[in-house]
Parts: sequence; C-alpha cells; structure tokens
Amino acid sequence: MESLDARPIGVFDSGVGGLTVLRALHEQMPNENLLYLGDTARVPYGTKSALSVQRYAEQAVLALLSRRVKAIVVACNTASAAAMDTLRARFTQLPVLGVIEPGAKVGCQMSKSGHLGVIATEGTIQGGAYTRAITQLRQDARVSSVACSLFVALAEEGWVEGDLVEAIIERYLAPLKAAPELDALVLGCTHFPVLKQAIQRVVGERVVLVDSAATAAAECDQLLRQHELRLATQQQGKIHFMVTDGPERFARVAKVFFPCHLSAEQVEVVDIQHFHPQFEKNEKEGLTLSQGSL
Amino acid sequence: MESLDARPIGVFDSGVGGLTVLRALHEQMPNENLLYLGDTARVPYGTKSALSVQRYAEQAVLALLSRRVKAIVVACNTASAAAMDTLRARFTQLPVLGVIEPGAKVGCQMSKSGHLGVIATEGTIQGGAYTRAITQLRQDARVSSVACSLFVALAEEGWVEGDLVEAIIERYLAPLKAAPELDALVLGCTHFPVLKQAIQRVVGERVVLVDSAATAAAECDQLLRQHELRLATQQQGKIHFMVTDGPERFARVAKVFFPCHLSAEQVEVVDIQHFHPQFEKNEKEGLTLSQGSL
Repeated sequence: MESLDARPIGVFDSGVGGLTVLRALHEQMPNENLLYLGDTARVPYGTKSALSVQRYAEQAVLALLSRRVKAIVVACNTASAAAMDTLRARFTQLPVLGVIEPGAKVGCQMSKSGHLGVIATEGTIQGGAYTRAITQLRQDARVSSVACSLFVALAEEGWVEGDLVEAIIERYLAPLKAAPELDALVLGCTHFPVLKQAIQRVVGERVVLVDSAATAAAECDQLLRQHELRLATQQQGKIHFMVTDGPERFARVAKVFFPCHLSAEQVEVVDIQHFHPQFEKNEKEGLTLSQGSL
Repeated sequence: MESLDARPIGVFDSGVGGLTVLRALHEQMPNENLLYLGDTARVPYGTKSALSVQRYAEQAVLALLSRRVKAIVVACNTASAAAMDTLRARFTQLPVLGVIEPGAKVGCQMSKSGHLGVIATEGTIQGGAYTRAITQLRQDARVSSVACSLFVALAEEGWVEGDLVEAIIERYLAPLKAAPELDALVLGCTHFPVLKQAIQRVVGERVVLVDSAATAAAECDQLLRQHELRLATQQQGKIHFMVTDGPERFARVAKVFFPCHLSAEQVEVVDIQHFHPQFEKNEKEGLTLSQGSL
C-alpha cells in the first residue's frame, strides 16, 4: 500500500560509511525523501562500549525524530549490533531497521553450500553479531569471519581499485579463498560496498558478494509498504545531510561514497530528553509526531 | 642537576601512538618512572575541533596531575598542535613538552638544503603546525607536506614491513622522492616510528628521517635537567598505563609499539575541575603537588 506520507526516512551512521546505505535507499526508492545524520563528532563507534553506542544511537534517533522522519534506518553495523533491541523497544511508534539482519538473511539465501564468509571491522567481527544472525536463520551454516581493519581507511582515502588495493584485499581474504565450499561473502561494513569490484576480482566469480547496503534498502522498501508508509509520487525525492562535526571533511570524503556534490548541515546531538521533555512525553504516550517537510 | 624526585613523567596521547614516545623516553631515561594515559574513549583527536582537543588535553593533564607527575609530555601531534599554548598558560607549575617543536628543531638542524618533508595525518598536515614551527626556526626553509592517511591503520594492524607495506608508502611518498633537494623527512605522527625502516627503504639513504618520538625524549631529558627534576638513581624505572576505554584492545595493539607485554588500568577522564576544586586552587596558587609514587 502506498501513501501520501512525504516525511523523510531517517538514516544514521557514525560517519560517512552509511552513505552507501543512503545511496542504495535512493536507488531503491528514488522518490522518497531522505535525511542523513553522520555522528562525525563521535566516530568511530567500533571502539566504544556497547552501552555508549546504545546511548549515541538513541540520541541520533531522537535528533532524527525532531526532524519528523517516518522510519529509521540504522546504517551502521556497530550500532545495528549493539542497539537494535534498545531502539525497537524504545521507539515503538515507527519502523526501525538495521543492516545486519537483512545482510544475514540474503547471505543465507545466496549460499548453496551453507559456508558463508563475513568481512567487517574488528569491532563487528569480535561482537559476533553476523555469525549469530546467520546461524539463527540457518542452523547448518558455517561462518568464516575476517576483520579487515585497513578497508575503512582505504575506502575513505578513495583507494578503491588497482593492483595495490587488490594486493591488500588479497592479504586479508587469502584464508577465505582457501575454503573451497565458501560461496557467499557478506560485506559487513557500510564502507565496503565501494570496494566491491576489487573484492569480487580477488575472491573470484564463484563467491556471491552480499552488499548489506543494498539488502537493507530492499528490506526498508518492503517494511514501508507493510506499514503503508511508502510514498506514492513520481517526483524525485530530496536528500538532506546533517553531521555532528566537520561538515567540510564529510563533504570531501563523501564523494567516494555518494556520486554527487553535497553539503552538510552541522547539528548538535545531545541527550535530548534532558532538554526537550515534550519529546519524552510524546514518545511515552506513543503519539505520532505530526507530518513535516525536509 | 639531578634530584631525588621519583615522581613519574606523565605522558598522554589520544590512543596507542604515543607509546612510541613513551618507548623513546624509556630508552633515553631508563631510570625515570613513567605514567601513560591513552584517551582511547575519545580517539581520534584528528577529526575533532581545536577547542574540543584543548579541553581533552586539559582534562588529561588534570588526570595525570592527580597521580602526581613531575612533568607532562604531550605525545600526540594533534594535541601538541592545538593545545600547547593553552596547557603552558594553565599549568605553570611543571614543565610541559609537546612533540612538534623538538621534531621541527632537529629537522632544521639535519637538513643541509633547507628543503624538508613532513608526513603526518590529514589533520596535522591541514593544521600546518609543523610548517609554521619549521619556518619560524629557519626562515629559508621550504616544507613539502604529505598526509599519509593509511599509515595509522597500517601501524595499528602491525603491518610494518614487506613489499606490500613499501608499495603503500611508495604511493604516498612519490612526490617527496621526486624532489632532489629534499634531505630531511619529519615523521609528524607518533604512529610512524614503527614504520621507520620501511619508510627509510622507500625514500633512500640520502634522506634523514627525523623521529619526533626520539627528539621529544631527548628534549624532555634536557628540560628535566634544567628544572633539576632528573632522577638520580641506577634503578630501572616503572611504567604504568591508563586508558579511558578498552584496555584489552589497547594491550593488544600496544604490542606493535611497545616491546613488552603490558596491562592497562581503565580510568575515567572527566572535567576534573568541577569535581575537585582543590586542584583548581592548588593550580591557581602555583602550589607544587606533593611527591607521590606510582
């Protein structure tokens, strides 16, 4: 079911990586308005405690709600791993989607052998969220994980192709290439889709790459339809960017991830419930926030 | 002049990089006690505003003072660039030393041609602190700077030698190699000394590498002697480590930087002046804190 609900979809990440998810959302649903929040003041989340990440995620959602979004996409693997339960329990008034469940689901569908690979940052791999999500969906699954700590820096530096990049990828993925059964590889970090072609060349065509940005976008489309929130218009949606620090660096690095020039608004993310008691009240009473515009 | 002052030298950095400075201090003054604080909860400083970095640096110094240190070494280029003036103005009761001035000084001494190179993180290069420090000391100097964004990740991953590492270094340093006059290269990031051998192989023997960890350690030794704080004992000094988050990761990554097994105590760094008015008072009155032990 489609609707006239032009409120944006709120997307947040600790920094620029979530832009791959934003891009996939825009490609999947070109007419939806999108509002991106990069918590660049507190990036990276990967080295913070789960409790801190939960608090940051709640604050990001509150900041997006204050701009009247109709759904939330947590475009950050660390926050998806640490905070999905907290966010869903607290924000019951709108759909909240992460990147791990959709990636794990499509990975399980794509693998014939049941032997999947997962590559991500050190924090995501150590937390084990992908392995848990995959084995919950498919009990016979075998998961081989590799932390690829240099990939984020490669992606942000714009080094996404060429012999040197492939040599670096090769060094990380050699153990996965040596596993003859492994036939699906989940890109468990939102930075990694920009390295997709180079990764594919290294692992070869027998391994299907599962881009967790694209799978999250498809899942979001479905979820909006279920909630009758999918906008019915032919008009191109608008995209607005917010960051908590360094809008210039964000705009510069974002070029690698998002194919057009953008400018970002700098915002403060604070423990909003302390300052806007009205929010807490609305939230507790389950009130729907009124419709706004970008 | 030597003394019986066994209080430790306080060393702080945003994370693990400052351990190269700690190591150099230990090699330069094996009998001094050292207290290291890694502000791992707020790493990296490089993407934060100068005002935030100044606040963090002041909080770190207060935390070290609460453990009764006799001198402060700011083992972090970002904090040295942003906060040295603030720290020296505020903490007049003890010597405070950064890493930029010693590196710039030795770089100027080592270069015959006057054409120096500086490699550092993106934030340090953009801030221009090394170029300013060098041209202040030597007005005829020409400085070529290159931001080597991947080097921190390389160092923390323990990738410090081999063909792949040299190929990555080569890609960054090609413009400096192409400058025939350039004869001194300042390693303007505390992570970089662990890549020193590989960098030397890439730039060749005609370029002198200036290790800002070693130069800061030599300067610290001199400064302590000037203040009559240099400990007169033959005993091996003790080293104690504190971090603001993730002591396990710190201990693991630290192995690349520090040649022995270590464990770190987790501490909170807060706006201490709000909670310990006594400190503020001591500080304003210029009182010397009484001597303590590690």
